[in-house]
Amino acid sequence: MFTVTFLPHQRSIRVPAGTQVIRAAMEAGVHINASCGGDGVCGKCRVIVEQGEVTGGDSERLREEDRALGYRLACQAKVAGDLVVRVPVESAIDASVLKRQPVPRRTAAIQQMDFEELKEEGLFLPPVEKIYLELPPPSVGDNQPDATRLVNYLTQHHDEHRLVVRLSVIRELPEVMRADDFRVTATLARPVHAGRKTHVTNLQPGDTTGRSYAIAMDIGTTTVYGQLIDLRTGEVLGEKGDFNGQISYGEDVISRIMHAEKPGGLEELQRVVVATMNGIIDELVHRSGVDPDDINSITLAGNTTMTHLALKVTPRFIRRAPYVPASTMYPPISATELGLHLPRHAAALVYPSISSYVGGDIVAGVMGSGMYRSEELILFMDIGTNAEIVIGNKDWLACAACSAGPAFEGGGVEFGMRAARGAIEDFSIDPLTLEPMLLTIGNMRPKGICGSGLITMVATLFETGVIDHQGKFDRRLASPRIREREGVGEYVLAWKEQTQIDRDIVLTEIDIENLIRAKGAIYSGCMTLLEEVGMRLEDVQRIYLAGGFGSYVDLAKAMVIGMLPEVDPEQVVYIGNASLMGAKMSALTNRIRRDVVTVTRMMTNFELSETPSYMNHYVAALFLPHTDLQRFPKLQARLEARRGGADK
Amino acid sequence: MFTVTFLPHQRSIRVPAGTQVIRAAMEAGVHINASCGGDGVCGKCRVIVEQGEVTGGDSERLREEDRALGYRLACQAKVAGDLVVRVPVESAIDASVLKRQPVPRRTAAIQQMDFEELKEEGLFLPPVEKIYLELPPPSVGDNQPDATRLVNYLTQHHDEHRLVVRLSVIRELPEVMRADDFRVTATLARPVHAGRKTHVTNLQPGDTTGRSYAIAMDIGTTTVYGQLIDLRTGEVLGEKGDFNGQISYGEDVISRIMHAEKPGGLEELQRVVVATMNGIIDELVHRSGVDPDDINSITLAGNTTMTHLALKVTPRFIRRAPYVPASTMYPPISATELGLHLPRHAAALVYPSISSYVGGDIVAGVMGSGMYRSEELILFMDIGTNAEIVIGNKDWLACAACSAGPAFEGGGVEFGMRAARGAIEDFSIDPLTLEPMLLTIGNMRPKGICGSGLITMVATLFETGVIDHQGKFDRRLASPRIREREGVGEYVLAWKEQTQIDRDIVLTEIDIENLIRAKGAIYSGCMTLLEEVGMRLEDVQRIYLAGGFGSYVDLAKAMVIGMLPEVDPEQVVYIGNASLMGAKMSALTNRIRRDVVTVTRMMTNFELSETPSYMNHYVAALFLPHTDLQRFPKLQARLEARRGGADK
Repeated sequence: MFTVTFLPHQRSIRVPAGTQVIRAAMEAGVHINASCGGDGVCGKCRVIVEQGEVTGGDSERLREEDRALGYRLACQAKVAGDLVVRVPVESAIDASVLKRQPVPRRTAAIQQMDFEELKEEGLFLPPVEKIYLELPPPSVGDNQPDATRLVNYLTQHHDEHRLVVRLSVIRELPEVMRADDFRVTATLARPVHAGRKTHVTNLQPGDTTGRSYAIAMDIGTTTVYGQLIDLRTGEVLGEKGDFNGQISYGEDVISRIMHAEKPGGLEELQRVVVATMNGIIDELVHRSGVDPDDINSITLAGNTTMTHLALKVTPRFIRRAPYVPASTMYPPISATELGLHLPRHAAALVYPSISSYVGGDIVAGVMGSGMYRSEELILFMDIGTNAEIVIGNKDWLACAACSAGPAFEGGGVEFGMRAARGAIEDFSIDPLTLEPMLLTIGNMRPKGICGSGLITMVATLFETGVIDHQGKFDRRLASPRIREREGVGEYVLAWKEQTQIDRDIVLTEIDIENLIRAKGAIYSGCMTLLEEVGMRLEDVQRIYLAGGFGSYVDLAKAMVIGMLPEVDPEQVVYIGNASLMGAKMSALTNRIRRDVVTVTRMMTNFELSETPSYMNHYVAALFLPHTDLQRFPKLQARLEARRGGADK
Repeated sequence: MFTVTFLPHQRSIRVPAGTQVIRAAMEAGVHINASCGGDGVCGKCRVIVEQGEVTGGDSERLREEDRALGYRLACQAKVAGDLVVRVPVESAIDASVLKRQPVPRRTAAIQQMDFEELKEEGLFLPPVEKIYLELPPPSVGDNQPDATRLVNYLTQHHDEHRLVVRLSVIRELPEVMRADDFRVTATLARPVHAGRKTHVTNLQPGDTTGRSYAIAMDIGTTTVYGQLIDLRTGEVLGEKGDFNGQISYGEDVISRIMHAEKPGGLEELQRVVVATMNGIIDELVHRSGVDPDDINSITLAGNTTMTHLALKVTPRFIRRAPYVPASTMYPPISATELGLHLPRHAAALVYPSISSYVGGDIVAGVMGSGMYRSEELILFMDIGTNAEIVIGNKDWLACAACSAGPAFEGGGVEFGMRAARGAIEDFSIDPLTLEPMLLTIGNMRPKGICGSGLITMVATLFETGVIDHQGKFDRRLASPRIREREGVGEYVLAWKEQTQIDRDIVLTEIDIENLIRAKGAIYSGCMTLLEEVGMRLEDVQRIYLAGGFGSYVDLAKAMVIGMLPEVDPEQVVYIGNASLMGAKMSALTNRIRRDVVTVTRMMTNFELSETPSYMNHYVAALFLPHTDLQRFPKLQARLEARRGGADK
């Protein structure tokens, strides 16, 4: 870690070696004009390295004499020691602007429960156990049936009771037992509820107790993720994601449901998603080199529609009012019954859903995050194609799906795109010149705007007064970047010469309006849920952010636009792919499998469209950050300070 | 019913109208020479109808003047009123012979438990219940998932708990519920053990509570029998038997096992027996007109090898010492998993076995006969290709398989055959002329000898002194029917002109030896079992005879040869196809399904070949009726009386 000090701001930040100087500046809240996303082509991000070492940053875009003076391109130069970097002030910047302490960029801390914690908390009830047995071979005086020999030995020597030997095991017993002279390893699948049967699901010759695996899988509308888990250590041996093959039948759940209603459509969609799942399974197995016969289960979590489709259950009535799924509980079945490339003995466990739009992925998140065991009041948000909210703790849980729309994933935004290479992910603006500083994923010339970038832009434009609390541009500001097309204001993020798409990349008032609607839906969803359960926002002690999107969101910016309530960022925890985490936890311990029944029963679902107060909350939230600025006191203070500064 | 009186014997019997006069004579113990089996071709069975009416019996084989005198052929004449019939005495018959009271022909009383008894005894715990529901349709204010709506309604209005909705039902729920405006009939499969789950196995639109069926099936090595049962009334709606298609792979279990060991052989045998089962199912469904969707289960009972083959479990080690089956307990599976033509929701329940040679058919017999609930000590015998014995009552049960060999089914007997048309099933002999009286199944010219006929012949020949206690013919007797071939004595039952096979049909000393071995195995099996459990034959209070063979056996004759102990015939009950009966009982009530676990646990299996006393008992039993004649006091008295008579 090295310290980089920016002048004339007199602002320092510690970053790892190899960090781009421009990213260090962004982190430190130091604006440097940059409009090519970090690709080195615009040549605008010139800085002077006054002390210390950088690697790279020399460019033909710099004049010879400037290079000699220590000029470098901040996007190309990488930190290689403690640095003092001067940002050339080409215009007369108001001193107050330089002194203004920015809100530090802050993403949520990442939390994932690990195996040891599980054990320490007494939550480890292994769902599967392998036991090595040296059975006495049959003789004239002892010719009990093979299955009885196995069961009796387990009973007498291992205190196992209520054993059921599956037919598939019975079929293999005689040969397996005799393959290594009655030395075998039995796989026992434990009952989730005490007093139920323990199933002997597999029998292998010799001692295979060292090999016991499971697969956890999150079936997303867009992406399917799988993990191969070592059941003895809790270790993730491999992870693999792939696009859900159903994408070619429509991007969202509604179009999938419509396809499923066509003749043969349901069967087709099931086949296609199973093919995606099998691709992932095959790859995990291939890469890890595990014997598929040692994989004992696959735990699946997905939204309600994805779950229906994977199980070949018609999702038809999910998309029609009053939005009724066929079922939200799914009994365990055999993985092969679904067509998965797993051994016959592997069980497929499917996370239950809550309602048509609060699915198994959310329940998995609640289980995996442990919020259902928490003393603290937790607000759980999973923001993806749609947004789902859960509020509660160990005593109660309430949930709702918000019709946030796809703005956070780039939908309904003119230049919106997924968080892929070329997406603008970070943004700053020079408050005087209104020139932008853009950083893209992969440091390439920009192609579009991703969700986290969008939030940062709107928050930044709002805090600098470029847009007002309704998201409208201040048309009095003199900048070629602020313009109007057919009455709609827009800001030019990148001129077409600096993009990959040969068009000006702009952020329009319509984009901003869509973002405001989306964040308004989420915020008002939280408010409505809290109100319905008689709580206030102040009672929330922790926020869990889930979903691929959550890890990149600048929390401070999300609070500026009023997407998140204004809380101490320390309270916000990013839990990643909560669905996959929950699936993994269920694969690891029966305790979670057991608790999930209780959780689904205690979880109250609110249909926001049917909750009268929701619309009021929603309308009030259609502002930046909110009609009632007092809900965001820190922002209010900053805005007032700035106004004061501006007034001076 | 009419009375037929035979002269000069002065013996009367009551028989139904239409009975052949010759069968009435056989029943009455009156000998009439007859060697064509009742076909009317030998013309020997001439009788004079002195009073009353017969239909038929006139024949060109009778001389004109004899007809005028009232002569008729006893095999063709049928009783049409009270009769007096004179048997012409063509030789000087010893008066004492005529006066000697024969042991009346006596087959076992038939007992089958019925549905009402089941209810009266409190044994009726219906395994399946259909409930008609008028569910409230979903609305904006009540959009619970379809499966939840169903479960909640059952819980709230029908006090149903621990419900599991199967995936196959979930798949159909949305459409079925909406087919008749949320009026549905749910099929609930009750847990066998209290506290376990009730499964919702099917959902049908409208009210179908009037239709609930099951299939019971006995998978015999030779024959497969199925019954279609109305679960509401216990009524058998149809019954159908067919040869087990596996017969072409060998007649006995050993040859089937050998075929199963060939590559693909097991799969082939499974397919073939399932094809037989499907033929029976299809026919039962077709004939009865029931909707297959209303069939809830199939209960299967078969010997251990048949069960292994039907479940595609290798029977390989059953035929090799120490005779180890893969399993004797089989978890319930889906009928479709076996390839049966039954709906997806139908469960296949498979009767557990005890050992390699005491199979599920025997356990089913123990369950179906109720012997496991009996206060009385019962001896259960199932005599077929092999013989199995169970002794016990409600407190204990012991069983064994006897290597009786196939003599009772015609195997190892020169002219042995199954109990089919043309088989000699009844026999009498004129003690002076040694001429036979033969009756065949179907009243056709004889083709061979079936099991029950064999027993009657040997018993009759023994009691008349034609064979001695070792089964050897008395070569001093002067009759063309008694002759010797290569040192082996034989009795000509029918001269070739009167047979269907154009050969003399004979009973040889080797045939008799085989029968003695077979009956000796059974008798000594009973003795050994009794001795092992510390009981005596006198303690046996009731004998249950099972198997297709049992209903035809003349009990008195079976006691004469020492196959059965000499008990009051009232104590002997024929229970028919006990395996099928047990399967039916299990289909009807969960009580039997639950008890079967207890029964299989309490049943002690004796491997007779490993039980030292067995060989002693066996050797002692290789005589007619036994080395120790005092064990058969009634026979002893009759033999002594006869010897006295002969001495006169």
